[in-house]
Amino acid sequence: MLSKNKIRFLAGLSNKKIRDRERLFLAEGTKLCSDLASVFPCRMILATPEWLAQHSLQKVEELIEVSESELRKVSNQKTPQGVLAVFEKTAQAYVDADLRQELSLALDGVQDPGNLGTIVRIADWFGIARIFCSEHCADAFSPKAVQASMGALARVQTYTVKLPEFLSDQASNLPLYAASMDGEDIYDSPLQAAGIVVMGSEGRGLSPEVDALISHKLLIPNFPKGSSSSESLNVSVATALICSEFRRRLR
Amino acid sequence: MLSKNKIRFLAGLSNKKIRDRERLFLAEGTKLCSDLASVFPCRMILATPEWLAQHSLQKVEELIEVSESELRKVSNQKTPQGVLAVFEKTAQAYVDADLRQELSLALDGVQDPGNLGTIVRIADWFGIARIFCSEHCADAFSPKAVQASMGALARVQTYTVKLPEFLSDQASNLPLYAASMDGEDIYDSPLQAAGIVVMGSEGRGLSPEVDALISHKLLIPNFPKGSSSSESLNVSVATALICSEFRRRLR
Repeated sequence: MLSKNKIRFLAGLSNKKIRDRERLFLAEGTKLCSDLASVFPCRMILATPEWLAQHSLQKVEELIEVSESELRKVSNQKTPQGVLAVFEKTAQAYVDADLRQELSLALDGVQDPGNLGTIVRIADWFGIARIFCSEHCADAFSPKAVQASMGALARVQTYTVKLPEFLSDQASNLPLYAASMDGEDIYDSPLQAAGIVVMGSEGRGLSPEVDALISHKLLIPNFPKGSSSSESLNVSVATALICSEFRRRLR
Repeated sequence: MLSKNKIRFLAGLSNKKIRDRERLFLAEGTKLCSDLASVFPCRMILATPEWLAQHSLQKVEELIEVSESELRKVSNQKTPQGVLAVFEKTAQAYVDADLRQELSLALDGVQDPGNLGTIVRIADWFGIARIFCSEHCADAFSPKAVQASMGALARVQTYTVKLPEFLSDQASNLPLYAASMDGEDIYDSPLQAAGIVVMGSEGRGLSPEVDALISHKLLIPNFPKGSSSSESLNVSVATALICSEFRRRLR
Protein backbone atom coordinates (compact mmCIF):
# COMPACT_ATOMS: atom_id res chain seq x y z
CA MET A 1 0.00 0.00 0.00
CA LEU A 2 1.41 3.32 -1.12
CA SER A 3 0.77 6.35 1.11
CA LYS A 4 0.19 9.84 -0.29
CA ASN A 5 3.44 10.91 1.35
CA LYS A 6 5.38 8.24 -0.51
CA ILE A 7 3.76 9.18 -3.81
CA ARG A 8 4.79 12.79 -3.21
CA PHE A 9 8.31 11.74 -2.22
CA LEU A 10 8.75 9.62 -5.37
CA ALA A 11 7.28 12.25 -7.67
CA GLY A 12 9.74 14.73 -6.12
CA LEU A 13 12.65 12.67 -7.42
CA SER A 14 11.80 13.76 -10.96
CA ASN A 15 13.08 17.16 -9.84
CA LYS A 16 16.84 17.73 -9.94
CA LYS A 17 16.88 20.06 -6.94
CA ILE A 18 15.21 17.43 -4.80
CA ARG A 19 17.45 14.64 -6.14
CA ASP A 20 20.51 16.73 -5.29
CA ARG A 21 19.25 17.68 -1.83
CA GLU A 22 18.21 14.13 -0.92
CA ARG A 23 21.10 12.54 -2.86
CA LEU A 24 18.66 9.97 -4.24
CA PHE A 25 17.50 8.85 -7.68
CA LEU A 26 14.94 6.51 -9.25
CA ALA A 27 15.28 3.55 -11.58
CA GLU A 28 12.82 1.04 -13.04
CA GLY A 29 13.01 -2.48 -14.40
CA THR A 30 14.66 -5.69 -13.19
CA LYS A 31 17.91 -5.57 -15.17
CA LEU A 32 18.54 -1.89 -14.58
CA CYS A 33 17.79 -1.99 -10.85
CA SER A 34 19.97 -5.06 -10.43
CA ASP A 35 22.92 -3.44 -12.28
CA LEU A 36 22.64 -0.27 -10.22
CA ALA A 37 22.32 -2.19 -6.93
CA SER A 38 25.84 -3.52 -7.50
CA VAL A 39 27.18 0.00 -6.94
CA PHE A 40 24.55 2.28 -5.40
CA PRO A 41 22.98 1.54 -1.99
CA CYS A 42 19.30 0.75 -2.47
CA ARG A 43 17.04 2.78 -0.20
CA MET A 44 13.63 1.57 -1.25
CA ILE A 45 11.99 -0.91 -3.58
CA LEU A 46 8.41 -0.83 -4.83
CA ALA A 47 7.36 -4.06 -6.48
CA THR A 48 4.21 -5.87 -7.51
CA PRO A 49 3.36 -9.26 -5.96
CA GLU A 50 4.00 -10.89 -9.37
CA TRP A 51 7.49 -9.41 -9.52
CA LEU A 52 8.27 -10.36 -5.92
CA ALA A 53 7.22 -13.95 -6.55
CA GLN A 54 9.82 -14.23 -9.31
CA HIS A 55 12.78 -12.35 -7.82
CA SER A 56 14.86 -12.53 -4.68
CA LEU A 57 16.06 -9.39 -2.93
CA GLN A 58 18.89 -8.40 -0.68
CA LYS A 59 19.97 -5.30 1.19
CA VAL A 60 16.86 -3.14 0.91
CA GLU A 61 16.07 -0.64 3.62
CA GLU A 62 12.40 -0.50 2.73
CA LEU A 63 10.32 -2.83 0.59
CA ILE A 64 6.80 -1.81 -0.38
CA GLU A 65 4.49 -4.21 -2.14
CA VAL A 66 2.30 -2.28 -4.57
CA SER A 67 -0.44 -3.09 -7.05
CA GLU A 68 0.06 -2.52 -10.79
CA SER A 69 -2.14 0.56 -10.59
CA GLU A 70 -0.22 2.00 -7.64
CA LEU A 71 3.04 1.45 -9.52
CA ARG A 72 1.62 3.26 -12.55
CA LYS A 73 1.00 6.31 -10.34
CA VAL A 74 4.71 6.75 -9.58
CA SER A 75 6.28 5.22 -12.68
CA ASN A 76 7.89 7.33 -15.40
CA GLN A 77 7.44 4.51 -17.92
CA LYS A 78 4.58 3.95 -20.32
CA THR A 79 4.60 0.28 -19.35
CA PRO A 80 5.87 -0.13 -15.78
CA GLN A 81 8.01 -3.24 -15.40
CA GLY A 82 6.93 -4.48 -11.97
CA VAL A 83 9.72 -2.86 -9.97
CA LEU A 84 10.89 0.67 -9.15
CA ALA A 85 13.82 1.40 -6.84
CA VAL A 86 15.28 4.42 -5.08
CA PHE A 87 19.08 4.51 -4.89
CA GLU A 88 21.53 6.72 -3.03
CA LYS A 89 23.78 8.78 -5.27
CA THR A 90 27.28 8.18 -4.08
CA ALA A 91 29.56 11.23 -4.09
CA GLN A 92 30.94 11.95 -7.54
CA ALA A 93 32.99 15.09 -6.94
CA TYR A 94 35.90 15.10 -9.31
CA VAL A 95 39.12 14.39 -7.45
CA ASP A 96 41.72 15.40 -9.96
CA ALA A 97 42.47 12.00 -11.47
CA ASP A 98 45.38 11.78 -13.87
CA LEU A 99 43.67 11.66 -17.27
CA ARG A 100 46.87 11.26 -19.26
CA GLN A 101 46.45 7.50 -19.65
CA GLU A 102 42.84 7.38 -20.77
CA LEU A 103 40.21 8.51 -23.24
CA SER A 104 37.50 10.62 -21.58
CA LEU A 105 34.39 12.43 -22.71
CA ALA A 106 33.24 15.98 -21.99
CA LEU A 107 29.73 17.25 -22.74
CA ASP A 108 29.13 20.94 -23.33
CA GLY A 109 25.43 21.50 -22.71
CA VAL A 110 23.90 18.19 -23.88
CA GLN A 111 20.36 18.97 -22.79
CA ASP A 112 18.27 15.95 -23.67
CA PRO A 113 18.36 13.43 -20.81
CA GLY A 114 17.78 10.57 -23.27
CA ASN A 115 20.88 11.61 -25.22
CA LEU A 116 22.87 11.96 -22.01
CA GLY A 117 21.91 8.48 -20.81
CA THR A 118 22.64 6.99 -24.24
CA ILE A 119 26.10 8.61 -24.15
CA VAL A 120 26.78 7.04 -20.72
CA ARG A 121 25.86 3.66 -22.25
CA ILE A 122 28.18 4.32 -25.22
CA ALA A 123 31.03 5.31 -22.89
CA ASP A 124 30.59 2.04 -21.02
CA TRP A 125 30.64 0.03 -24.25
CA PHE A 126 33.87 1.68 -25.35
CA GLY A 127 35.61 1.43 -21.98
CA ILE A 128 35.50 5.15 -21.18
CA ALA A 129 35.42 5.62 -17.41
CA ARG A 130 34.70 9.34 -17.00
CA ILE A 131 32.33 11.89 -18.49
CA PHE A 132 32.77 15.57 -17.57
CA CYS A 133 29.49 17.48 -17.92
CA SER A 134 29.12 21.24 -18.11
CA GLU A 135 26.67 22.82 -15.71
CA HIS A 136 24.16 23.23 -18.57
CA CYS A 137 23.91 19.51 -19.27
CA ALA A 138 20.88 17.37 -18.42
CA ASP A 139 21.30 15.50 -15.14
CA ALA A 140 22.67 11.98 -15.55
CA PHE A 141 20.45 10.92 -12.63
CA SER A 142 17.16 12.17 -14.08
CA PRO A 143 14.71 9.30 -14.65
CA LYS A 144 15.00 9.46 -18.46
CA ALA A 145 18.80 9.51 -18.41
CA VAL A 146 18.96 6.64 -15.92
CA GLN A 147 16.65 4.52 -18.09
CA ALA A 148 18.57 5.34 -21.30
CA SER A 149 21.92 4.50 -19.65
CA MET A 150 20.74 0.90 -19.17
CA GLY A 151 22.79 0.42 -16.02
CA ALA A 152 26.01 1.92 -17.39
CA LEU A 153 25.85 4.56 -14.63
CA ALA A 154 27.11 1.79 -12.37
CA ARG A 155 30.37 1.69 -14.33
CA VAL A 156 30.88 5.18 -15.77
CA GLN A 157 31.53 8.19 -13.52
CA THR A 158 29.82 11.44 -14.46
CA TYR A 159 31.09 14.71 -13.00
CA THR A 160 29.59 18.17 -13.23
CA VAL A 161 32.38 20.72 -13.73
CA LYS A 162 32.90 24.28 -14.87
CA LEU A 163 33.79 23.00 -18.30
CA PRO A 164 35.83 25.88 -19.82
CA GLU A 165 38.05 26.07 -16.71
CA PHE A 166 38.36 22.31 -16.49
CA LEU A 167 39.31 21.90 -20.15
CA SER A 168 41.65 24.86 -19.99
CA ASP A 169 43.52 23.09 -17.15
CA GLN A 170 43.72 19.87 -19.18
CA ALA A 171 44.69 21.44 -22.49
CA SER A 172 48.41 21.58 -21.68
CA ASN A 173 48.54 17.84 -20.96
CA LEU A 174 46.06 16.34 -23.35
CA PRO A 175 44.67 16.70 -26.86
CA LEU A 176 41.08 17.96 -26.86
CA TYR A 177 39.04 16.55 -29.75
CA ALA A 178 35.66 17.71 -31.03
CA ALA A 179 33.40 16.92 -33.97
CA SER A 180 33.16 19.76 -36.46
CA MET A 181 31.92 20.26 -40.01
CA ASP A 182 35.19 22.19 -40.60
CA GLY A 183 37.33 19.44 -39.10
CA GLU A 184 39.79 17.03 -40.69
CA ASP A 185 38.27 13.72 -41.85
CA ILE A 186 38.46 11.53 -38.74
CA TYR A 187 39.61 8.55 -40.84
CA ASP A 188 42.63 10.55 -42.07
CA SER A 189 43.42 12.13 -38.69
CA PRO A 190 46.05 10.93 -36.24
CA LEU A 191 44.25 10.00 -33.02
CA GLN A 192 46.08 9.53 -29.74
CA ALA A 193 45.03 6.84 -27.30
CA ALA A 194 44.55 9.35 -24.47
CA GLY A 195 42.62 12.61 -24.70
CA ILE A 196 39.23 14.18 -24.18
CA VAL A 197 36.47 14.04 -26.79
CA VAL A 198 34.24 17.10 -26.32
CA MET A 199 30.67 16.98 -27.64
CA GLY A 200 28.48 20.08 -27.99
CA SER A 201 24.79 20.66 -27.36
CA GLU A 202 22.05 19.38 -29.65
CA GLY A 203 21.05 22.76 -31.00
CA ARG A 204 24.08 24.99 -30.72
CA GLY A 205 27.17 22.78 -30.73
CA LEU A 206 30.14 23.93 -28.64
CA SER A 207 30.08 27.16 -26.67
CA PRO A 208 32.66 29.69 -27.94
CA GLU A 209 34.84 29.40 -24.79
CA VAL A 210 35.07 25.64 -25.17
CA ASP A 211 35.47 25.76 -28.94
CA ALA A 212 38.54 27.99 -28.53
CA LEU A 213 40.27 25.27 -26.46
CA ILE A 214 39.85 22.39 -28.95
CA SER A 215 43.17 21.20 -30.37
CA HIS A 216 41.84 18.70 -32.96
CA LYS A 217 38.63 19.17 -34.93
CA LEU A 218 37.33 15.99 -36.51
CA LEU A 219 34.87 15.62 -39.36
CA ILE A 220 32.63 12.54 -39.44
CA PRO A 221 32.29 12.18 -43.22
CA ASN A 222 28.87 11.65 -44.71
CA PHE A 223 28.34 9.65 -47.91
CA PRO A 224 28.90 10.37 -50.69
CA LYS A 225 31.34 12.73 -48.98
CA GLY A 226 30.10 16.30 -49.00
CA SER A 227 26.65 15.41 -50.35
CA SER A 228 23.66 17.47 -49.29
CA SER A 229 22.24 14.99 -46.83
CA SER A 230 21.13 15.68 -43.26
CA GLU A 231 23.11 18.53 -41.81
CA SER A 232 24.11 16.72 -38.70
CA LEU A 233 23.90 13.55 -36.70
CA ASN A 234 22.26 13.14 -33.32
CA VAL A 235 24.84 13.94 -30.61
CA SER A 236 24.80 10.43 -29.15
CA VAL A 237 25.27 8.88 -32.60
CA ALA A 238 28.20 11.24 -33.31
CA THR A 239 29.73 10.36 -29.94
CA ALA A 240 29.54 6.66 -30.77
CA LEU A 241 31.14 7.11 -34.20
CA ILE A 242 34.06 9.07 -32.72
CA CYS A 243 34.64 6.72 -29.76
CA SER A 244 34.45 3.73 -32.09
CA GLU A 245 37.16 5.14 -34.34
CA PHE A 246 39.48 5.88 -31.39
CA ARG A 247 39.05 2.30 -30.21
CA ARG A 248 39.46 0.78 -33.69
CA ARG A 249 42.88 2.42 -33.94
CA LEU A 250 44.02 0.66 -30.78
CA ARG A 251 43.24 -2.81 -32.12
CA MET B 1 -8.41 30.98 -33.96
CA LEU B 2 -8.42 27.21 -33.59
CA SER B 3 -11.81 25.46 -33.66
CA LYS B 4 -12.57 22.41 -31.54
CA ASN B 5 -12.92 20.42 -34.75
CA LYS B 6 -9.42 21.37 -35.84
CA ILE B 7 -7.99 20.47 -32.43
CA ARG B 8 -9.67 17.06 -32.68
CA PHE B 9 -8.42 16.59 -36.24
CA LEU B 10 -4.82 17.43 -35.27
CA ALA B 11 -4.90 15.28 -32.14
CA GLY B 12 -6.15 12.42 -34.33
CA LEU B 13 -2.93 12.54 -36.35
CA SER B 14 -1.06 11.11 -33.34
CA ASN B 15 -2.95 7.90 -34.17
CA LYS B 16 -1.47 5.68 -36.88
CA LYS B 17 -4.84 4.42 -38.10
CA ILE B 18 -6.02 7.96 -38.69
CA ARG B 19 -2.72 8.98 -40.34
CA ASP B 20 -3.01 6.01 -42.69
CA ARG B 21 -6.66 6.63 -43.50
CA GLU B 22 -6.19 10.36 -44.09
CA ARG B 23 -2.72 9.92 -45.60
CA LEU B 24 -1.51 12.88 -43.52
CA PHE B 25 1.15 13.51 -40.89
CA LEU B 26 2.32 16.30 -38.57
CA ALA B 27 5.64 18.08 -38.19
CA GLU B 28 6.83 21.00 -36.06
CA GLY B 29 9.58 23.59 -36.27
CA THR B 30 10.83 25.87 -39.05
CA LYS B 31 13.74 23.79 -40.39
CA LEU B 32 11.87 20.49 -40.31
CA CYS B 33 8.70 21.86 -41.94
CA SER B 34 10.72 23.59 -44.62
CA ASP B 35 12.71 20.40 -45.41
CA LEU B 36 9.54 18.35 -45.63
CA ALA B 37 7.73 20.95 -47.75
CA SER B 38 10.31 20.33 -50.49
CA VAL B 39 8.85 16.83 -50.98
CA PHE B 40 5.46 16.47 -49.30
CA PRO B 41 2.48 18.67 -50.24
CA CYS B 42 1.60 20.91 -47.31
CA ARG B 43 -2.07 20.76 -46.38
CA MET B 44 -2.18 23.10 -43.41
CA ILE B 45 0.05 25.40 -41.40
CA LEU B 46 -0.59 26.64 -37.87
CA ALA B 47 1.71 29.47 -36.88
CA THR B 48 1.96 32.21 -34.30
CA PRO B 49 1.93 35.88 -35.36
CA GLU B 50 5.60 36.14 -34.27
CA TRP B 51 6.57 33.23 -36.52
CA LEU B 52 4.56 34.58 -39.46
CA ALA B 53 6.23 37.98 -39.16
CA GLN B 54 9.63 36.34 -39.64
CA HIS B 55 8.91 33.77 -42.36
CA SER B 56 7.46 33.75 -45.84
CA LEU B 57 5.19 30.97 -47.01
CA GLN B 58 4.20 29.40 -50.26
CA LYS B 59 1.82 26.69 -51.45
CA VAL B 60 -0.29 26.19 -48.34
CA GLU B 61 -3.89 25.09 -48.71
CA GLU B 62 -4.86 26.43 -45.29
CA LEU B 63 -3.04 28.83 -43.00
CA ILE B 64 -4.28 29.32 -39.45
CA GLU B 65 -2.83 32.00 -37.22
CA VAL B 66 -2.80 30.74 -33.63
CA SER B 67 -1.70 32.04 -30.28
CA GLU B 68 1.16 30.42 -28.34
CA SER B 69 -1.36 28.82 -25.99
CA GLU B 70 -3.49 27.45 -28.86
CA LEU B 71 -0.34 25.98 -30.41
CA ARG B 72 0.56 24.33 -27.11
CA LYS B 73 -2.82 22.54 -27.17
CA VAL B 74 -2.00 20.68 -30.37
CA SER B 75 1.79 20.50 -30.17
CA ASN B 76 3.64 17.28 -29.33
CA GLN B 77 6.69 19.29 -28.20
CA LYS B 78 7.53 20.48 -24.71
CA THR B 79 8.49 23.84 -26.19
CA PRO B 80 6.47 24.49 -29.36
CA GLN B 81 8.51 26.27 -32.00
CA GLY B 82 5.96 28.66 -33.47
CA VAL B 83 4.90 26.49 -36.40
CA LEU B 84 3.16 23.17 -36.92
CA ALA B 85 2.32 21.77 -40.35
CA VAL B 86 0.19 18.96 -41.76
CA PHE B 87 1.66 17.19 -44.79
CA GLU B 88 0.30 14.65 -47.23
CA LYS B 89 2.05 11.30 -47.17
CA THR B 90 2.92 10.50 -50.73
CA ALA B 91 2.54 6.87 -51.74
CA GLN B 92 5.47 4.74 -50.63
CA ALA B 93 4.47 1.30 -51.81
CA TYR B 94 7.58 -0.65 -52.67
CA VAL B 95 7.89 -1.03 -56.41
CA ASP B 96 10.50 -3.72 -56.69
CA ALA B 97 13.57 -1.56 -57.24
CA ASP B 98 16.79 -3.30 -58.12
CA LEU B 99 18.72 -3.24 -54.87
CA ARG B 100 21.85 -4.88 -56.26
CA GLN B 101 23.70 -1.58 -56.64
CA GLU B 102 23.03 -0.09 -53.22
CA LEU B 103 23.27 -0.46 -49.47
CA SER B 104 19.83 -0.61 -47.82
CA LEU B 105 18.51 -1.00 -44.30
CA ALA B 106 15.83 -3.33 -42.96
CA LEU B 107 14.27 -2.98 -39.50
CA ASP B 108 12.78 -6.01 -37.79
CA GLY B 109 10.42 -4.64 -35.14
CA VAL B 110 12.17 -1.41 -34.09
CA GLN B 111 9.42 -0.17 -31.80
CA ASP B 112 10.56 3.14 -30.41
CA PRO B 113 9.55 5.96 -32.77
CA GLY B 114 12.52 8.06 -31.59
CA ASN B 115 14.91 5.27 -32.59
CA LEU B 116 13.14 4.85 -35.91
CA GLY B 117 13.38 8.56 -36.73
CA THR B 118 17.04 8.65 -35.67
CA ILE B 119 17.74 5.70 -38.00
CA VAL B 120 16.10 7.57 -40.91
CA ARG B 121 18.43 10.50 -40.14
CA ILE B 122 21.45 8.15 -40.03
CA ALA B 123 20.44 6.57 -43.36
CA ASP B 124 20.30 10.03 -44.92
CA TRP B 125 23.75 10.91 -43.56
CA PHE B 126 25.25 7.76 -45.01
CA GLY B 127 23.52 8.01 -48.38
CA ILE B 128 21.15 5.09 -47.85
CA ALA B 129 17.99 5.66 -49.89
CA ARG B 130 15.66 2.91 -48.64
CA ILE B 131 14.59 1.43 -45.32
CA PHE B 132 12.39 -1.68 -45.26
CA CYS B 133 10.35 -1.88 -42.07
CA SER B 134 8.60 -4.97 -40.75
CA GLU B 135 4.95 -4.62 -39.87
CA HIS B 136 5.87 -4.52 -36.17
CA CYS B 137 8.01 -1.40 -36.46
CA ALA B 138 7.00 2.01 -35.15
CA ASP B 139 5.50 4.23 -37.84
CA ALA B 140 8.05 6.51 -39.53
CA PHE B 141 5.30 9.16 -39.79
CA SER B 142 4.40 9.25 -36.09
CA PRO B 143 5.09 12.68 -34.56
CA LYS B 144 8.10 11.46 -32.53
CA ALA B 145 9.70 9.69 -35.48
CA VAL B 146 9.16 12.68 -37.76
CA GLN B 147 10.81 15.02 -35.23
CA ALA B 148 13.76 12.65 -34.65
CA SER B 149 14.32 12.24 -38.40
CA MET B 150 15.08 15.96 -38.67
CA GLY B 151 13.77 16.23 -42.21
CA ALA B 152 15.55 13.12 -43.53
CA LEU B 153 12.12 11.64 -44.37
CA ALA B 154 12.20 13.98 -47.34
CA ARG B 155 15.19 12.08 -48.75
CA VAL B 156 14.92 8.51 -47.46
CA GLN B 157 12.09 6.19 -48.52
CA THR B 158 10.60 3.96 -45.85
CA TYR B 159 8.52 0.95 -46.87
CA THR B 160 6.45 -1.37 -44.73
CA VAL B 161 6.88 -4.95 -45.96
CA LYS B 162 6.35 -8.51 -44.83
CA LEU B 163 9.99 -8.68 -43.81
CA PRO B 164 10.73 -12.43 -43.80
CA GLU B 165 9.21 -12.84 -47.29
CA PHE B 166 10.91 -9.71 -48.59
CA LEU B 167 14.34 -10.70 -47.27
CA SER B 168 13.89 -14.26 -48.46
CA ASP B 169 13.32 -12.92 -52.00
CA GLN B 170 16.45 -10.75 -51.76
CA ALA B 171 18.72 -13.37 -50.19
CA SER B 172 19.65 -14.99 -53.49
CA ASN B 173 20.88 -11.67 -54.94
CA LEU B 174 22.33 -9.85 -51.99
CA PRO B 175 24.26 -10.38 -48.77
CA LEU B 176 22.11 -9.82 -45.68
CA TYR B 177 24.10 -8.40 -42.77
CA ALA B 178 23.07 -8.15 -39.12
CA ALA B 179 24.72 -7.16 -35.84
CA SER B 180 25.23 -10.08 -33.50
CA MET B 181 27.18 -10.82 -30.35
CA ASP B 182 28.20 -14.10 -32.06
CA GLY B 183 29.26 -12.38 -35.27
CA GLU B 184 32.67 -11.82 -36.81
CA ASP B 185 34.40 -8.60 -35.78
CA ILE B 186 33.09 -6.04 -38.30
CA TYR B 187 36.59 -4.55 -38.70
CA ASP B 188 37.94 -7.94 -39.82
CA SER B 189 34.95 -8.83 -42.02
CA PRO B 190 34.76 -8.41 -45.77
CA LEU B 191 31.90 -6.00 -46.51
CA GLN B 192 30.38 -5.63 -49.95
CA ALA B 193 29.28 -2.24 -51.23
CA ALA B 194 25.72 -3.47 -51.90
CA GLY B 195 23.57 -5.42 -49.47
CA ILE B 196 20.96 -5.08 -46.76
CA VAL B 197 21.83 -4.34 -43.14
CA VAL B 198 19.09 -5.80 -40.93
CA MET B 199 18.60 -4.41 -37.42
CA GLY B 200 16.49 -6.12 -34.76
CA SER B 201 14.11 -4.79 -32.15
CA GLU B 202 15.29 -3.00 -28.98
CA GLY B 203 14.34 -5.76 -26.59
CA ARG B 204 14.43 -8.99 -28.55
CA GLY B 205 16.78 -8.51 -31.48
CA LEU B 206 15.95 -10.33 -34.71
CA SER B 207 12.91 -12.58 -35.03
CA PRO B 208 13.87 -16.25 -35.65
CA GLU B 209 12.53 -16.23 -39.26
CA VAL B 210 14.65 -13.21 -40.15
CA ASP B 211 17.68 -14.42 -38.21
CA ALA B 212 17.69 -17.61 -40.27
CA LEU B 213 18.10 -15.58 -43.49
CA ILE B 214 21.16 -13.55 -42.43
CA SER B 215 24.26 -14.42 -44.45
CA HIS B 216 26.83 -12.31 -42.54
CA LYS B 217 26.72 -11.72 -38.77
CA LEU B 218 28.83 -8.79 -37.64
CA LEU B 219 30.13 -8.05 -34.15
CA ILE B 220 30.62 -4.41 -33.14
CA PRO B 221 33.55 -4.88 -30.75
CA ASN B 222 33.44 -3.22 -27.36
CA PHE B 223 36.62 -2.06 -25.59
CA PRO B 224 38.66 -3.64 -24.20
CA LYS B 225 37.33 -6.33 -26.52
CA GLY B 226 35.16 -8.81 -24.67
CA SER B 227 35.09 -6.80 -21.44
CA SER B 228 32.01 -6.93 -19.26
CA SER B 229 30.63 -3.56 -20.17
CA SER B 230 27.06 -2.76 -21.24
CA GLU B 231 25.50 -5.75 -22.93
CA SER B 232 24.37 -3.89 -25.95
CA LEU B 233 24.20 -0.60 -27.74
CA ASN B 234 21.07 1.34 -28.54
CA VAL B 235 19.73 0.14 -31.93
CA SER B 236 20.19 3.51 -33.63
CA VAL B 237 23.78 3.76 -32.34
CA ALA B 238 24.53 0.23 -33.61
CA THR B 239 22.99 1.11 -36.99
CA ALA B 240 25.25 4.16 -37.26
CA LEU B 241 28.39 2.20 -36.39
CA ILE B 242 27.65 -0.44 -39.02
CA CYS B 243 26.68 2.01 -41.78
CA SER B 244 29.77 4.09 -41.01
CA GLU B 245 32.06 1.09 -41.44
CA PHE B 246 30.46 0.12 -44.78
CA ARG B 247 31.01 3.65 -46.02
CA ARG B 248 34.58 3.93 -44.67
CA ARG B 249 35.51 0.89 -46.77
CA LEU B 250 34.36 2.66 -49.95
CA ARG B 251 36.64 5.64 -49.41
